[in-house]
Amino acid sequence: MIKITLPDSSVREYEKGVSGLDIARSISNRLAKEVLSITVNGEVCDLTRSIEADSTIKLNTWDDAEGKHAFWHSSAHLMAEAIDVLYPGTKFAIGPSIEMGFYYDLDLPEGKQITDKDLKKIEQKMLELARQKNAFVRTEMAKEEALAHFTEKGDEYKQELISELEDGTITFYEQGGFTDLCRGPHLPNTSYIKAIQLNSIAGAYWRGDEKNKMLTRIYGVTFPKAKFLDEYNKMMEEAKKRDHRKIGKEMELFTFSQSVGQGLPLWLPKGAALRERLENFLKVVQKKFGYEQIITPHIGDVRLYKTSGHYQKYGADSFQTINTPAEGEEFMLKPMNCPHHCEVFKFKPRSYKDLPTRFAEFGTVYRYEQSGELHGLTRVRGFTQDDAHIFCRPDQLKEEFKKVIDIIFIIFKALDFKEYTAQISLRDPQKPEKYIGTPENWDKAEQAIVEACEEKGLNTITELGEAAFYGPKLDFMIKDALGRSWQLGTIQVDYNLPERFELEYIGSDDKRHRPVMIHRAPFGSMERFCAVLIEHTAGKFPLWLTPEQVVILPISEKYNDYAAKVSNYLNICDIRSIVDDRNEKIGRKIRDNELKRIPYLLIVGEQEAENETVSVRRQGEGDKGTMAMKEFADFINDEVRNQLSEIYN
Amino acid sequence: MIKITLPDSSVREYEKGVSGLDIARSISNRLAKEVLSITVNGEVCDLTRSIEADSTIKLNTWDDAEGKHAFWHSSAHLMAEAIDVLYPGTKFAIGPSIEMGFYYDLDLPEGKQITDKDLKKIEQKMLELARQKNAFVRTEMAKEEALAHFTEKGDEYKQELISELEDGTITFYEQGGFTDLCRGPHLPNTSYIKAIQLNSIAGAYWRGDEKNKMLTRIYGVTFPKAKFLDEYNKMMEEAKKRDHRKIGKEMELFTFSQSVGQGLPLWLPKGAALRERLENFLKVVQKKFGYEQIITPHIGDVRLYKTSGHYQKYGADSFQTINTPAEGEEFMLKPMNCPHHCEVFKFKPRSYKDLPTRFAEFGTVYRYEQSGELHGLTRVRGFTQDDAHIFCRPDQLKEEFKKVIDIIFIIFKALDFKEYTAQISLRDPQKPEKYIGTPENWDKAEQAIVEACEEKGLNTITELGEAAFYGPKLDFMIKDALGRSWQLGTIQVDYNLPERFELEYIGSDDKRHRPVMIHRAPFGSMERFCAVLIEHTAGKFPLWLTPEQVVILPISEKYNDYAAKVSNYLNICDIRSIVDDRNEKIGRKIRDNELKRIPYLLIVGEQEAENETVSVRRQGEGDKGTMAMKEFADFINDEVRNQLSEIYN
Repeated sequence: MIKITLPDSSVREYEKGVSGLDIARSISNRLAKEVLSITVNGEVCDLTRSIEADSTIKLNTWDDAEGKHAFWHSSAHLMAEAIDVLYPGTKFAIGPSIEMGFYYDLDLPEGKQITDKDLKKIEQKMLELARQKNAFVRTEMAKEEALAHFTEKGDEYKQELISELEDGTITFYEQGGFTDLCRGPHLPNTSYIKAIQLNSIAGAYWRGDEKNKMLTRIYGVTFPKAKFLDEYNKMMEEAKKRDHRKIGKEMELFTFSQSVGQGLPLWLPKGAALRERLENFLKVVQKKFGYEQIITPHIGDVRLYKTSGHYQKYGADSFQTINTPAEGEEFMLKPMNCPHHCEVFKFKPRSYKDLPTRFAEFGTVYRYEQSGELHGLTRVRGFTQDDAHIFCRPDQLKEEFKKVIDIIFIIFKALDFKEYTAQISLRDPQKPEKYIGTPENWDKAEQAIVEACEEKGLNTITELGEAAFYGPKLDFMIKDALGRSWQLGTIQVDYNLPERFELEYIGSDDKRHRPVMIHRAPFGSMERFCAVLIEHTAGKFPLWLTPEQVVILPISEKYNDYAAKVSNYLNICDIRSIVDDRNEKIGRKIRDNELKRIPYLLIVGEQEAENETVSVRRQGEGDKGTMAMKEFADFINDEVRNQLSEIYN
Repeated sequence: MIKITLPDSSVREYEKGVSGLDIARSISNRLAKEVLSITVNGEVCDLTRSIEADSTIKLNTWDDAEGKHAFWHSSAHLMAEAIDVLYPGTKFAIGPSIEMGFYYDLDLPEGKQITDKDLKKIEQKMLELARQKNAFVRTEMAKEEALAHFTEKGDEYKQELISELEDGTITFYEQGGFTDLCRGPHLPNTSYIKAIQLNSIAGAYWRGDEKNKMLTRIYGVTFPKAKFLDEYNKMMEEAKKRDHRKIGKEMELFTFSQSVGQGLPLWLPKGAALRERLENFLKVVQKKFGYEQIITPHIGDVRLYKTSGHYQKYGADSFQTINTPAEGEEFMLKPMNCPHHCEVFKFKPRSYKDLPTRFAEFGTVYRYEQSGELHGLTRVRGFTQDDAHIFCRPDQLKEEFKKVIDIIFIIFKALDFKEYTAQISLRDPQKPEKYIGTPENWDKAEQAIVEACEEKGLNTITELGEAAFYGPKLDFMIKDALGRSWQLGTIQVDYNLPERFELEYIGSDDKRHRPVMIHRAPFGSMERFCAVLIEHTAGKFPLWLTPEQVVILPISEKYNDYAAKVSNYLNICDIRSIVDDRNEKIGRKIRDNELKRIPYLLIVGEQEAENETVSVRRQGEGDKGTMAMKEFADFINDEVRNQLSEIYN
């Protein structure tokens, strides 16, 4: 008998050689139906693999990333099988699972091609093969034998992949008539796959290198229940409506100009107001936490970036350096604010009493991206980080981490992100030589992060080996209203730049010490954050934040004066309002302004002008009745006050 | 007899051939002593020149720029004469009057040089020659003869200058034994010059071109009374104390780093706070005037700047273009914000009802300056303009100009600049071909500026031919507390960019029209303006603006807690305070904090802690007695409220 420890720490005994599927069955029939893969001592495996010794396990279902991964990875194999049947002679490159589904890159036989209208046919074939309940069978294979298999098939892609693997680590999976080089894990058989949808076809270079052959990539998504596919399609429909590029245009938040350049956003008045309000909100919060705002230029001498190492890192693939009429003088667009902040730290001697010193800057940085990679505000070439650098003593790390976590909590609360997780990235304990900084300092820093997260009750996962070479870090992921995950802010410890810039402070022992640096950006960048916020709220920003809180719609031109009077009154009450005094029918005005996502629409005509009242509509909700001007102003101010007091308390 | 019209429009009759000196004498002996040059029909002339026809004149004294110009220009000749005597064989290049004094560029004979300790000797010789009362005698000379004169003298600099002049326009001036090529005008004789001080020696390339020979430049200043020199020296002493570079360091407002690059300021926390408060002040004002803030990137595709013409203008002498990994892709650091603002204007169709559209941006631009030209914050390579562009119909120009003037008045009032003038720069009526845009539009624009200035009661001077080729403009000059002039904001009409960017709006006639653009920047740039403000106030910023209003100084560490309590209380009352809780003697704390120019210093010890009071000191003024905490808070808030209500009313 062997001992199997479950996630709730309970221990069960089984015969040696028991499989995940056996364990699931022993717990409940329902679990046996739902389980998709098993994690054994940290390694994700097939459910059918036998367990030979005492182990800690986790059974993964559709609710776990590890479950979905096995499901979609198996679906990629299923699609390959279908294509192998329909387009014999196709060569298969790689076919991974992705965040939402899977793809496979194919090299179709000479003269063949797959277009959108072929996708249905492939889906049908996949369903047919799935119903055959073909088992995914794993075999280990010697490298020579594996090479021989694909040489015979004439698939140079798999041959290239195998040639890079070590002998003894190579496994194949076979289902139905299809065999693929694969690490696994996979589902027990194809019948788990009930709903299939192939979404799109794209071109992709073998290994992402444009010098290689262009392959055909087919994206798909599959589900264990037909109902899940319907939900997925509804969600995609909603996501399309919430696309920040679409809403950004409708609300006139930002635009791009080919003449200015791709990936360089122009913030229109309303977008700039939104961004400024977000920045001011963060400035107020940061001031409370002892941050000092600074302002630094957008370029720097290349020597600065050679010192920091950014020149070496961003060199050839980025914006090139800027020459001047003076010989040998060379500047660079700043890809990061940290080198400038180090120089500000250095401008005068610092004592241990001055630490922590926290420099914040809404610093615009420029990093080159291939034009194909650009996407709205989420992937741009110039963006403004809500950046700050904390220079502190090693013993202050934990306290500073906790304070940054507090700031991030305030932001999530303010902007109604209710679900979030964090990832702690630590050293790879096997490879200490990879990291700069003393092991003692690393121990301190890692412990500081772990303890800070614990004390703040943060829901975290810990990844070994994911730390940067210069320090451990903490990344925040949020879920938006559609359940999509976004990576936002990062808190990064840095032992490297203080070393490179020879930063120092005088300790209480009157000796020179090196401070530790923390990089942190809760929003990440204003561009990316605004994009996420737009998609999360569908453009309906919280009342305290939204650039225009109220729009006043006179029923006809006769009431434009009264509308202006109401607007003036509201502005005096610190409420941001505008008037739509266009010569349009009221129905049209309501429709147009609903689209602008202004939270309140006030309709004013004869009755309202006579009684000094307003007819109130809430955007997306309709009529809310008539109020006196003052009553309405109090109502709005109360709502904002409630929102703000919830944020800060 | 001829008719002479004086500035007060009175008309006097004189014999034909009367001189300026004669006219002055006919008015008063005192005036005859004080007059230095005469302006005849707009042209500044020697006082001894005879007037042959009816004319409008102005007699210029030391109080007029034209008087000082003649005085200092004559002093340059006097210095040259002295050097010609002391260092025979010296060649003379150019010797103009400047804002405060004059200089002369010399090519000394082989092996000779002038050092600081030689300046006294030259001053003595100048005084000796001045007392000789040598007349400045003007002679017209044919080009050939003039060339011959300097060929004989072996002075290749004057030869080069003469070769570029047209025959018939060449005049010489002679005083004592010294003759110089010169347009004049000059003083009647050398005896006017009573006080002489040579200030410094510098190197200067002939014609400013570093490929040419380096000449010796001697700077000096002279006065008609010994007392004026004393005043000048006192003023220079005060100016040194107020040097914004010195105060910027003492107050920790900004710094520079060689690693970041020359001319690229790093704004330290207190400087950044000052700048942000100024920006917010202007944002509030501009919002009232209907401006919309936008945000645009700091780079743009070179094609954008080829369209605007900035590429051609800033090309070779500026920061060079930025290449990317993509072939043929080329960006430029933005030297101006206007091209970006034109693209924002173009992002959607505009109607005549949408105009004026006013886009404002605190836009950071980068322009290359030779390293020798850089100076603190007044001459930098990267600076942030308080920029805005107004797109309006031609008939809206005057109203828009008046509104911009109103904004500028609010700024001058807010920052206590009491003396200012403005220069209207119009077309050269002789050269209509120089200008872009129709004559009708120019007429309208020039009239709009002139009328706007009149209606606003602005003290202006008008310069013909000083307009840019693309439109007339209005420049503001202020006098600071030391009486020095600074050029600040500009309002510039532009017909060129709307043309180049093909900007359009749909008129009430449903046809396409071209809008007019107004560029305007009341501060000019945040860097330059802060420099001027620091020198004007000697770092003692108005209470409403200053980043730190109050510093609390506990007498010993025992009272640090009470100091923190006071600071908290003040912060709640919206008063910006800090605590100096260093372990230093109170005398040292007072001295250190006086240097920081924080307006109020609160000293707290046993008595204050017991009675919840504070001992108040006003910076630079000393003890103001003891107040209760609340009493002090009210006192400060009243002072700020009074300042702000004066600004806005």
